[in-house]
Amino acid sequence: MDAAEFRKRGKEMVDYVADYLEKIEKRQVFPDVEPGYLRPLVADSAPQDPESFEDVFKDIEKIIMPGVTHWHSPYFFAYFPSASSFPALLADMLCGGIGCVGFSWAASPACTELETVMLDWLGKMVNLPKEFLAEKDGQGGGVIQGSASEATLIALLAARTKIIRQVQSEKPELTEAEIMGTLVAYASDQFCATLGTTSCCSFDKLLELGPLCNKENIWMHIDAAYAGSAFICPEFRHLLNGVEFADSFNFNPHKWLLVNFDCSAMWVKKRSDLIGAFKLEPLYLQHHHQESGLVTDYRHWQIPLGRRFRSLKLWFVLRMYGVRGLQEHIRKHIRLSHQFEHLVLQDERFEICAEVVLGLVCFRLKGSNELNEALLKSINDAKKIHLVPCHLREKFVLRFAVCSRTVESTHIKFAWQHISQLATDLLKTWEHNHHQQ
Amino acid sequence: MDAAEFRKRGKEMVDYVADYLEKIEKRQVFPDVEPGYLRPLVADSAPQDPESFEDVFKDIEKIIMPGVTHWHSPYFFAYFPSASSFPALLADMLCGGIGCVGFSWAASPACTELETVMLDWLGKMVNLPKEFLAEKDGQGGGVIQGSASEATLIALLAARTKIIRQVQSEKPELTEAEIMGTLVAYASDQFCATLGTTSCCSFDKLLELGPLCNKENIWMHIDAAYAGSAFICPEFRHLLNGVEFADSFNFNPHKWLLVNFDCSAMWVKKRSDLIGAFKLEPLYLQHHHQESGLVTDYRHWQIPLGRRFRSLKLWFVLRMYGVRGLQEHIRKHIRLSHQFEHLVLQDERFEICAEVVLGLVCFRLKGSNELNEALLKSINDAKKIHLVPCHLREKFVLRFAVCSRTVESTHIKFAWQHISQLATDLLKTWEHNHHQQ
Repeated sequence: MDAAEFRKRGKEMVDYVADYLEKIEKRQVFPDVEPGYLRPLVADSAPQDPESFEDVFKDIEKIIMPGVTHWHSPYFFAYFPSASSFPALLADMLCGGIGCVGFSWAASPACTELETVMLDWLGKMVNLPKEFLAEKDGQGGGVIQGSASEATLIALLAARTKIIRQVQSEKPELTEAEIMGTLVAYASDQFCATLGTTSCCSFDKLLELGPLCNKENIWMHIDAAYAGSAFICPEFRHLLNGVEFADSFNFNPHKWLLVNFDCSAMWVKKRSDLIGAFKLEPLYLQHHHQESGLVTDYRHWQIPLGRRFRSLKLWFVLRMYGVRGLQEHIRKHIRLSHQFEHLVLQDERFEICAEVVLGLVCFRLKGSNELNEALLKSINDAKKIHLVPCHLREKFVLRFAVCSRTVESTHIKFAWQHISQLATDLLKTWEHNHHQQ
Repeated sequence: MDAAEFRKRGKEMVDYVADYLEKIEKRQVFPDVEPGYLRPLVADSAPQDPESFEDVFKDIEKIIMPGVTHWHSPYFFAYFPSASSFPALLADMLCGGIGCVGFSWAASPACTELETVMLDWLGKMVNLPKEFLAEKDGQGGGVIQGSASEATLIALLAARTKIIRQVQSEKPELTEAEIMGTLVAYASDQFCATLGTTSCCSFDKLLELGPLCNKENIWMHIDAAYAGSAFICPEFRHLLNGVEFADSFNFNPHKWLLVNFDCSAMWVKKRSDLIGAFKLEPLYLQHHHQESGLVTDYRHWQIPLGRRFRSLKLWFVLRMYGVRGLQEHIRKHIRLSHQFEHLVLQDERFEICAEVVLGLVCFRLKGSNELNEALLKSINDAKKIHLVPCHLREKFVLRFAVCSRTVESTHIKFAWQHISQLATDLLKTWEHNHHQQ
């Protein structure tokens, strides 16, 4: 395929994506396929000779779409949102076209420098303490990781290296393995200090944890993967109070800030802590600017060596939505979650299981876990909406997460009426067949 | 931005990307900017109100492009290739549009199933032993990682977990930390068993390492990040002989197989080794198919939880190039590297520093390291082509890597004439100012 054909096919693909997203509501949110559906639909091995774009293109609807869970359907209320917006899609096209690999400043200066500045923009949007910003000559700064898990791993490894070096300088007779055996990572069942847990969007008390960590010289990492985006609204920023005690902080614009996956934003107060842990300097990656102290080489900040030009997505989204546009998006989702909460509360068969703070509602039928498992099954079998469950203190709970960029009040009402009707149907048969617990 | 505007802007972006790649040869391959160039060109913080697409779009040429190292220029001979092709760009547009997060089978069955089948296709293309394939009911299989570093880390963690459990079952009195202190990872200065090192594309002797690892019950991981793509050509497949002794194998189609970054393919003989090390089962990620043993949940195979629909890129590229098209691409690059090698060999001022096996030529002026450092500096200062160096046994060596999809014999000739002329100029002044070593 040459550039001329790409112009043609690229435009067809733009229309296909626009059609898909414009009419996504008409597709069944969860697919009908059974495990192993795809293999019989494709060849056993790659073709020897090229196939045409048309051949491949027609297989999208035939082979791929029947097996897609439509995360951007306004009837998708499962997991947490995965961000998607047109500006981010445009930026990703540019990112692919440029196709640079930004492991060092020299490997593509724009890739590194835009990322540093965008992480400053984003840090200011959530009002991070100044120590976390790179600015012109700060000691902190931000980086885009692939996921919150990678950010947590990086924080853990940096903390481990830092404390091992500290102990070694005091007790040089100890080996690294001996020191490692004595290290402790304090964690809850959500691992680190977490703002907005996946199960029920609960919040750790940073103002209690933080001073303790600082006093005991413990690295504090805060994971606000989902909730972090809400902190761009002043009325939710108080949930981040205590971040000033942390060494590192992370949230995922690719969840709730309209920046397509992957874009997990991580900040550290001391960039030297990361660089010290991961520095890698083969000659082929060195360049004459690196000893000036003026440049950032992001390969020292992450597990992979290679990295895409992901900050373009942030740049496009932050500018084309503006802070106000993004705040509106967050506030709409939170308004809709409270709408759903009120609908649940008006039905005395149901209970709310955790405070609704952001876009997640945890709810259940008053009754046994089995009853609620049966309700969830009937919801997901009907495939008109899609939810996933969680456990809260032994209780089986349904999670209703406001996810889609295009979800509106009508979809919330539909979802509730649907759930309510399925509950009515279920309770009728249930009361015949079971004793209520 | 709504779908209607996306249709318009998306098509403009397709044209921009097509223009960029079609005329990339006219851009200076390495940028003129100095560290810190970008910050003064953009605002201090994100705008409160939305800016228009036009405003953002015009900043691409103004702010971004002056700082881009053009990896796809036919004058780019640095590092290793980063793959780029039009079919892969089209697939990435689709991937972004679908925007699913494929951490489990249920989160988007097509995303998981296409990946498993594509890794079988790719495994067959490099003629991997059958144990590495998933097929309908194999014990092995493949997964797309973000980078070879992640694949290596995953292999290391899986190997560690496996051996710790084995030791614990024999000596239950030992703690995990005690066992860890006794573990050994055998590595060269390239870490694990490597096919095609970054410095000079050398190859470890798998047929010697493999039986030893098997005898001593050592997990063998093979990293063929760059070289792996060449194994689709029968005449280079012998370089992979010995893979039958390995536990895991990895190469990067995003380097040399025309699949845009990121797409790092990893296979294991026993998928249970990975899953055993990383299994994570909160209720909200469970689904009723997982106990059937029929489905793959790729979150157990990787560090991150989230994952994009990256197998679409493989599907588009393998089908629209065909095996033969991809073989032609590999063979063209290797032919061009030998062309460059011959040009070097005809000039007795120069020497070749390592056997040219694939697309990399390591060469230098006969003389001191300082002389060669000066030559590289004059090459990169002129910015007509771009190279990076390496160290081979204390010697400073220039690496000439055939990279661009569109590089042709004329570019190789130009590069050599340019280097040769710069060497002539350099040697004139050098002989005046220095004693030859």
